[in-house]
Amino acid sequence: MPDRTAPLRVAVAGASGYAGGEVLRLLLGHPEYRAGRLEIGALTAGSNAGTALGMLQPHLLPLADRILAPTTAADLAGHDVVFLGLPHGQSAALATELPDSTVIIDCGADFRLTDPAAWDRYYGGPHAGSWPYGLPELPGARELLRGATRIAVPGCYPTVASLALAPAVAAGIVDPDVNIVAVTGTSGAGRKLDVGLLGSEVMGSARAYGIAGAHRHTPEIAQNLTAAAGNPVRVSFTPVLAPMPRGILATCTAPVRVDAAQARAVYEKAYADEPFVHLLPEGVLPQTGAVLGANTVTLQVTVDPDAGRLVVIGAVDNLTKGTAGAAVQSMNLALGLDETAGLPTVGVAP
Amino acid sequence: MPDRTAPLRVAVAGASGYAGGEVLRLLLGHPEYRAGRLEIGALTAGSNAGTALGMLQPHLLPLADRILAPTTAADLAGHDVVFLGLPHGQSAALATELPDSTVIIDCGADFRLTDPAAWDRYYGGPHAGSWPYGLPELPGARELLRGATRIAVPGCYPTVASLALAPAVAAGIVDPDVNIVAVTGTSGAGRKLDVGLLGSEVMGSARAYGIAGAHRHTPEIAQNLTAAAGNPVRVSFTPVLAPMPRGILATCTAPVRVDAAQARAVYEKAYADEPFVHLLPEGVLPQTGAVLGANTVTLQVTVDPDAGRLVVIGAVDNLTKGTAGAAVQSMNLALGLDETAGLPTVGVAP
Amino acid sequence: MPDRTAPLRVAVAGASGYAGGEVLRLLLGHPEYRAGRLEIGALTAGSNAGTALGMLQPHLLPLADRILAPTTAADLAGHDVVFLGLPHGQSAALATELPDSTVIIDCGADFRLTDPAAWDRYYGGPHAGSWPYGLPELPGARELLRGATRIAVPGCYPTVASLALAPAVAAGIVDPDVNIVAVTGTSGAGRKLDVGLLGSEVMGSARAYGIAGAHRHTPEIAQNLTAAAGNPVRVSFTPVLAPMPRGILATCTAPVRVDAAQARAVYEKAYADEPFVHLLPEGVLPQTGAVLGANTVTLQVTVDPDAGRLVVIGAVDNLTKGTAGAAVQSMNLALGLDETAGLPTVGVAP
Amino acid sequence: MPDRTAPLRVAVAGASGYAGGEVLRLLLGHPEYRAGRLEIGALTAGSNAGTALGMLQPHLLPLADRILAPTTAADLAGHDVVFLGLPHGQSAALATELPDSTVIIDCGADFRLTDPAAWDRYYGGPHAGSWPYGLPELPGARELLRGATRIAVPGCYPTVASLALAPAVAAGIVDPDVNIVAVTGTSGAGRKLDVGLLGSEVMGSARAYGIAGAHRHTPEIAQNLTAAAGNPVRVSFTPVLAPMPRGILATCTAPVRVDAAQARAVYEKAYADEPFVHLLPEGVLPQTGAVLGANTVTLQVTVDPDAGRLVVIGAVDNLTKGTAGAAVQSMNLALGLDETAGLPTVGVAP
Repeated sequence: MPDRTAPLRVAVAGASGYAGGEVLRLLLGHPEYRAGRLEIGALTAGSNAGTALGMLQPHLLPLADRILAPTTAADLAGHDVVFLGLPHGQSAALATELPDSTVIIDCGADFRLTDPAAWDRYYGGPHAGSWPYGLPELPGARELLRGATRIAVPGCYPTVASLALAPAVAAGIVDPDVNIVAVTGTSGAGRKLDVGLLGSEVMGSARAYGIAGAHRHTPEIAQNLTAAAGNPVRVSFTPVLAPMPRGILATCTAPVRVDAAQARAVYEKAYADEPFVHLLPEGVLPQTGAVLGANTVTLQVTVDPDAGRLVVIGAVDNLTKGTAGAAVQSMNLALGLDETAGLPTVGVAP
Repeated sequence: MPDRTAPLRVAVAGASGYAGGEVLRLLLGHPEYRAGRLEIGALTAGSNAGTALGMLQPHLLPLADRILAPTTAADLAGHDVVFLGLPHGQSAALATELPDSTVIIDCGADFRLTDPAAWDRYYGGPHAGSWPYGLPELPGARELLRGATRIAVPGCYPTVASLALAPAVAAGIVDPDVNIVAVTGTSGAGRKLDVGLLGSEVMGSARAYGIAGAHRHTPEIAQNLTAAAGNPVRVSFTPVLAPMPRGILATCTAPVRVDAAQARAVYEKAYADEPFVHLLPEGVLPQTGAVLGANTVTLQVTVDPDAGRLVVIGAVDNLTKGTAGAAVQSMNLALGLDETAGLPTVGVAP
Repeated sequence: MPDRTAPLRVAVAGASGYAGGEVLRLLLGHPEYRAGRLEIGALTAGSNAGTALGMLQPHLLPLADRILAPTTAADLAGHDVVFLGLPHGQSAALATELPDSTVIIDCGADFRLTDPAAWDRYYGGPHAGSWPYGLPELPGARELLRGATRIAVPGCYPTVASLALAPAVAAGIVDPDVNIVAVTGTSGAGRKLDVGLLGSEVMGSARAYGIAGAHRHTPEIAQNLTAAAGNPVRVSFTPVLAPMPRGILATCTAPVRVDAAQARAVYEKAYADEPFVHLLPEGVLPQTGAVLGANTVTLQVTVDPDAGRLVVIGAVDNLTKGTAGAAVQSMNLALGLDETAGLPTVGVAP
Repeated sequence: MPDRTAPLRVAVAGASGYAGGEVLRLLLGHPEYRAGRLEIGALTAGSNAGTALGMLQPHLLPLADRILAPTTAADLAGHDVVFLGLPHGQSAALATELPDSTVIIDCGADFRLTDPAAWDRYYGGPHAGSWPYGLPELPGARELLRGATRIAVPGCYPTVASLALAPAVAAGIVDPDVNIVAVTGTSGAGRKLDVGLLGSEVMGSARAYGIAGAHRHTPEIAQNLTAAAGNPVRVSFTPVLAPMPRGILATCTAPVRVDAAQARAVYEKAYADEPFVHLLPEGVLPQTGAVLGANTVTLQVTVDPDAGRLVVIGAVDNLTKGTAGAAVQSMNLALGLDETAGLPTVGVAP
């Protein structure tokens, strides 16, 4: 853990992307930053290096004049915390060049999967290994994050899907055979130049992609649920792109062995003490607009007796709790700060 | 069937709603209308009676000066075809007051369900009975529509869900236990004054509703799939509201007994001769924007071997093929016209 | 000014509306609230009284269990600060029933206009008078707000239009004949059940309304600019509804007497010390998405030499700086707190 | 004019872009195509050559299997009509390689401007000259289009701005000093890979661009209005990007010399016989959603007596009447077909 007599120095690699931008938005509102005990140091980028941040992230007005440095170990050296918002496959090499004592929080996928075969199948190339997983609400996860210096932030879909289903599989109230269809906003794809992500193409239209297990988040969801269940969980996962910038609304079902009240009791218990996971009152359904910009996951759970299935609906902001919020929450745990510091629980609505 | 020496007289009840408006849009482009062989007669409404159509349906410029009549049997009398776009429960009484020879095409739910118990559970009140079902692409349906004088237009979700799954359950390649999550645009809810449907509430947000079998389209889907399978099919159905005016993107899965190629062959055969159902090339995924305003359903089918599930994705415009297009297609069949007359197959995109 | 040894008690009337909801969002993040020195007291509503706030404002999770009281003077009594987010015409009567020492901050229009004739023409009925105007960035406004106990929060359009044009008319660099076309998100219309505000109607469509001087914000803009200029300013104002929940993008032009550099210098000077008004670097244009949820106004100013016009573009979040942010900013000034306390300057983007 | 004993052969260069796609959508619904008297021949593209059209224009199902050819004169040879939907600057060279008898309809800017100096200032490079201008509703324009073999399709903004203001400047009821602020959907920018056009960036946000006369459509608007007025008209033009795929809503004002009734009379007379330009009833305002996919321009005209300005609001679909609809309308005139053939007048709404 860094020496707290001097202000913490925090760097963000990939500051021109959506994940990096959201980390910075949260840091600018963090109480340690406001109190002068946390400084925002190097901001780096790939092809955008040399540009003022204000040209790329016009909402980050207090940092508008900052010039982006290239993403190199030299530029990231000398910081207590380094957030990485890089394309998959770039974090591993960079991490080895930074001191062990630096808290590295990787918003990419490099260190999420524990199974090298799963990595090879979905990402290809050598497996970099796995780091403590930045989803403290999963069983056993929080302890590994306290004081950690290497943290893998979960994918956005796995965040909500895992929180929506882990209590059920852990309690054994469903068969280990789950079905997840998750509607996402476009920012989940990153700030990527792709015809299919142009406003003209996405507005007024919905489409599935990466179906039938092809999406890279599938093994991550399976890994989390298998760990929670203690035995293999089969996952059918379909992501659907919807015309909104942010948010994931996940519909999760599985063959169920209990009634609605029993299922609800399992979830009430699982999340009773969690500050960021809210089981909504009976009959109230999650909506992504209500968690916009917040580190909150809202859930509803019930049982469809005719279909014989548990139905869990979950909403999350893919960029906040789904990425950058989890990153800052993990930083807080790593540094021994209040876990909730700097993390909004109130969405921006309507 | 009406005497074809005089022009057909067509009335639309509920002309100020979205279903009625879409019927009129299609009729204005229908070749019989353009050739002067089909006249648009009475246009009726409930609380909007007395208003010029142009104030309520500004896109229907050629009919802008038409004054809406009240929805009464007297106003609808003297027409060869009457389209009903009314709130559920109003069609039955009106239908009994019109001659048996009038072709009545009901866009509402009153005559869709064959099981009085299902009607009572989902809609309440006495069951009005069932009419030939206006989804000609289902096995056996087309024959019943030729020359019919009473037609029940399917619900929008059942249209795409049934077409997406009927071939599989009919061929016995899946277990009779299906999972459907369908993302819809807001027009599916009708032109209803509801805070939850305000633009401020729906834009930038997704939410599920009517979960766990509560949505009224659930028994209709089950009815269609059970008929196709020849034995009971369990249906888990979750509708999700997304920020777009039109379109349904349905993700349909079920435990599968064949591989992807075998599944595809079943769908190729089922829809080889259908003008409005398109199985897309392998790897190409449906998107609702591509069928906007068209009477087209696009499908993709594959198998997720890890999850052991068939995955079918379907896209439809809920107001066109999902409602008014099916109504006009049914009219064509009822009157012995070319089934495809007046029905766009090309969407308005982007 | 209230006794500061006890926590401040703050009430919000109209807590189920968009203005009230945004006031509450900001209060929940206010440092005085976080420090326990500001309490959120009565939350009242009209027809929604008796309902839990969580059913109406699902993003305000920390207040989800609060039951809305009716909007009566009795329910609002005993508070140090009362925010009013009520339909026009209701504030005046209520205000007379509350003590003079209560800081009343009215988000409605009742006390904005100084000219009874303008009030009568645009709102009708008796003129309630005028209160100090909660736009501290206008010349002379800030002083009147310090210690005030009655404050009229500006309309959303007048906020951005006045800030965009006041420096120019005050400096005499334009003719007193301005043209404003402002694109707005739908929340500016409030949470009103109106067919024209349904998601199905607004998405994918833009429309003007209240054209040719009919909009009620027209006299308010003219009042502000006339005051800044010291002589009458003619205003042509056209509001345009665009498919987005929040945000106003105002295009303001006027016949100009200086060049771009001189115009820019006027604005640089006018806003050099303002924390919430940002003149963007040359060539960078405001966008509403960059100020979403922030109390920030971004401006760009230049001259079109061919047209001979000053062109000022301004962006604001109509609910934050355009309403509730201005209300909290005014509260801060009234109570002698840091003017910027609790007011985000960083937008939620993308 | 081509020999009409054989079917017309029509080619589309730039078939993978938005303009080209919309031309094809309209041609597929054109009565000449349906009657077998018009064939869709070569479809060409730049970097997309070699790809099946269905991968790029999924809404054009009947042409899904067509393989895009490269855009060369050889590929475009042997057609009676060639539509060009190319980046600016490419049409001129191509046109010289095609026979004089080929009807070339250029959706790009190359031949719109008559003034070489204006071309040089806004586009740079040598001026290719000017062709008959495909906006038949402008005074004198229709006659030049009948039988023409070279046609320049207007820009989308100039279409609506010119139709909105030409009657007023021609009649001399306004000063020749007009102000235009036009809100546009994103497809106006083309299918261009640009971060600022990503769905994540445009949804929920409005922004101006090309302000203060910088937009290339400014001289085209001035050219049209100057021609209509018979003397120079000054134009202040500001385009604003709004979160919708299609549509332009233009707010046009100018100092006025008559009252509202007189102004209205001018417009009624100007457009009395035009099939595609609709002056809406008094008090009814244009909305882009009502003309989606239609070749219709809707206008409202009034006078703001306080501001002393004419106010004209116009709505158009930038891809239909704003581009491809005008192109097909021009083709109809060039070939001596019914001018309105194949051009929808009814929008797709909601």
